[in-house]
Amino acid sequence: MSNDTLHFLKAQMRDIVGGYKLDVPACPIKLNQNENPYDWPASLKQAVFERVRDLPWNRYPPFVPSDFVAVVAKYLGVDPAQVLVGNGSNELMYSVFATVLEPGRKAVVTQPTFTLYSLLAKLFGATVESINLDAEMRFDAPKLQAAAKDASLVVIASPNNPTGSVIDPMDLEHMVASSPALFVIDEAYFDFHGETALELTRTYRNVVVLRTFSKAFATAGLRFGLMVAHKEALPFFATAKLPYNLNIFTMAAVETAIEHASTLKNRLDEIKRERERVMRELKARKGIKVFPSRSNFFIFETDRAPRKLWQSMVKKGVLVRDVSGYPMLSKALRVTIGRPEENDAFLKALEFAMVDNGPAT
Amino acid sequence: MSNDTLHFLKAQMRDIVGGYKLDVPACPIKLNQNENPYDWPASLKQAVFERVRDLPWNRYPPFVPSDFVAVVAKYLGVDPAQVLVGNGSNELMYSVFATVLEPGRKAVVTQPTFTLYSLLAKLFGATVESINLDAEMRFDAPKLQAAAKDASLVVIASPNNPTGSVIDPMDLEHMVASSPALFVIDEAYFDFHGETALELTRTYRNVVVLRTFSKAFATAGLRFGLMVAHKEALPFFATAKLPYNLNIFTMAAVETAIEHASTLKNRLDEIKRERERVMRELKARKGIKVFPSRSNFFIFETDRAPRKLWQSMVKKGVLVRDVSGYPMLSKALRVTIGRPEENDAFLKALEFAMVDNGPAT
Repeated sequence: MSNDTLHFLKAQMRDIVGGYKLDVPACPIKLNQNENPYDWPASLKQAVFERVRDLPWNRYPPFVPSDFVAVVAKYLGVDPAQVLVGNGSNELMYSVFATVLEPGRKAVVTQPTFTLYSLLAKLFGATVESINLDAEMRFDAPKLQAAAKDASLVVIASPNNPTGSVIDPMDLEHMVASSPALFVIDEAYFDFHGETALELTRTYRNVVVLRTFSKAFATAGLRFGLMVAHKEALPFFATAKLPYNLNIFTMAAVETAIEHASTLKNRLDEIKRERERVMRELKARKGIKVFPSRSNFFIFETDRAPRKLWQSMVKKGVLVRDVSGYPMLSKALRVTIGRPEENDAFLKALEFAMVDNGPAT
Repeated sequence: MSNDTLHFLKAQMRDIVGGYKLDVPACPIKLNQNENPYDWPASLKQAVFERVRDLPWNRYPPFVPSDFVAVVAKYLGVDPAQVLVGNGSNELMYSVFATVLEPGRKAVVTQPTFTLYSLLAKLFGATVESINLDAEMRFDAPKLQAAAKDASLVVIASPNNPTGSVIDPMDLEHMVASSPALFVIDEAYFDFHGETALELTRTYRNVVVLRTFSKAFATAGLRFGLMVAHKEALPFFATAKLPYNLNIFTMAAVETAIEHASTLKNRLDEIKRERERVMRELKARKGIKVFPSRSNFFIFETDRAPRKLWQSMVKKGVLVRDVSGYPMLSKALRVTIGRPEENDAFLKALEFAMVDNGPAT
């Protein structure tokens, strides 16, 4: 028998191969990945190194890093028995999907949203039902609720990426209480919004809340995420997660980040103010529609071809995200809020780009 | 509908929950996890920190860390298009299993072996067929070959954990060439053995070789692993792996490790010599059967109850692995080779333990 045809692959691999990619040019002003624009101070980097220096690098981390999980749980104000930690919230999402999804089961995602949700659901053989946001990019709770009735999994990002939309807490609890599906609430951008579904995990066994330190804590380079679930559900998710997944450096960095949370997060108010300023300036311009956002990014539509606008801005040294390939967003770009001077550069680059590509598509 | 019963879980989660656990007492002499007994020198730890200090911690690592993958590929002597990197080889195994396994498919594992293989195969809904090693803990190639005929996946650890057995390269190539299944060859302990299946990945699309830096490179605390596959198969495995999975610190540490490979690996010969010395001493004792090993650990059987021996040794401050719960190993313990003085302590502790628990079960 020949093995030239890779027939050991599951059938769906042919459809999803290369399904999530990001090829970007290098640009001096990087407003394309919803990163925090402020790096860690040198003194905090040094503090991490001092923590890790005297640890034995040749030894495995603990099978379950209980002391570390306790620090994280205390920071969140939840029971440590509700917490799992991972290399970015993506890793935990993967494990949660693995406990729930298989061929014959259905996952519900909103659209437009983070590409990885439906890619992973398909990887596990589930069918994916997409529920569009409404024309103003708000969640459509009645449609979501109806779709959840026979679903195994519902994924809701709040604030949603790339739109910045947030779910109404009453709508969410109503859905969770009336549906057998597992609800995964991705709160990657929680710190820019302030509302959380964490409280639901005390009562409902069918809720998982994901958080990341990549955004508000300025820790994207270190890849740390966590999940909170009901403590009776947690052992199942833990079984689908690999042991020893976090390295000693990540744990040292996160402990340092939590100790110095006020230092690392002291720019959040500035970022939110800047978001409002930049949105206000764009709203005052002709031919641009700005959508509300509760995060450190927002989307806007113009009457020009988004790919051309994007290219013109790249030439000016400003990198935003071309989201025009997402469902419903054929006219849209997404911009991350950076430092004030970076935001000014974006405003100017967009102005030039509109002229370069004007008057309309 | 109530959600009290967690009925969003896949059925198999009830069977595998908590399936891989390790609860161990703290012991001054730790010979239970096949770790390298020598920590990194302080100067190399400092070198890692200097690499990472000036990087932006607030920014994501590259979507595909091409420069880093090129360094790793060069070290292995393979094409970078054949390489994926992960947080330990476990993470890559998880992704590879995801591309291949689903309900209705079969995975073949040898027994006794690393618990995680069958646990993960069951997580993905596959049936698991176990092929026992022979009474001398050698691979049974004809039986493996027969089982592989209608399998999607065959996992072979060589050297095998916990037995130290190695697969014959001719047997392996014959199986790979004559079977449609994907063969995952876990070479976590390659550096103690020296023979590899890497060459097969150039020719055969149905071979994946896993390596880790945890053992020979003394980097268990940093969790780095890699996989090598045929370059036409690699994009599929890459799709099932999360992006941005490695943090900047892991990459800096691995680059440093490769630059200083001779320093970090200069104890391998000592470890292999010590393995032979310790085995020789045990073979000279009555009531102990030692099995050959090509790794930094070996198993031995005694005529005493293994759990009691284990406990007696813990009381003497020496922690070995009680593997008596594994198939075929009801009389066995596994010991990792440590520093010479640690190995002496083990030899003494076992002597005492045999007396404490003697004469026979």
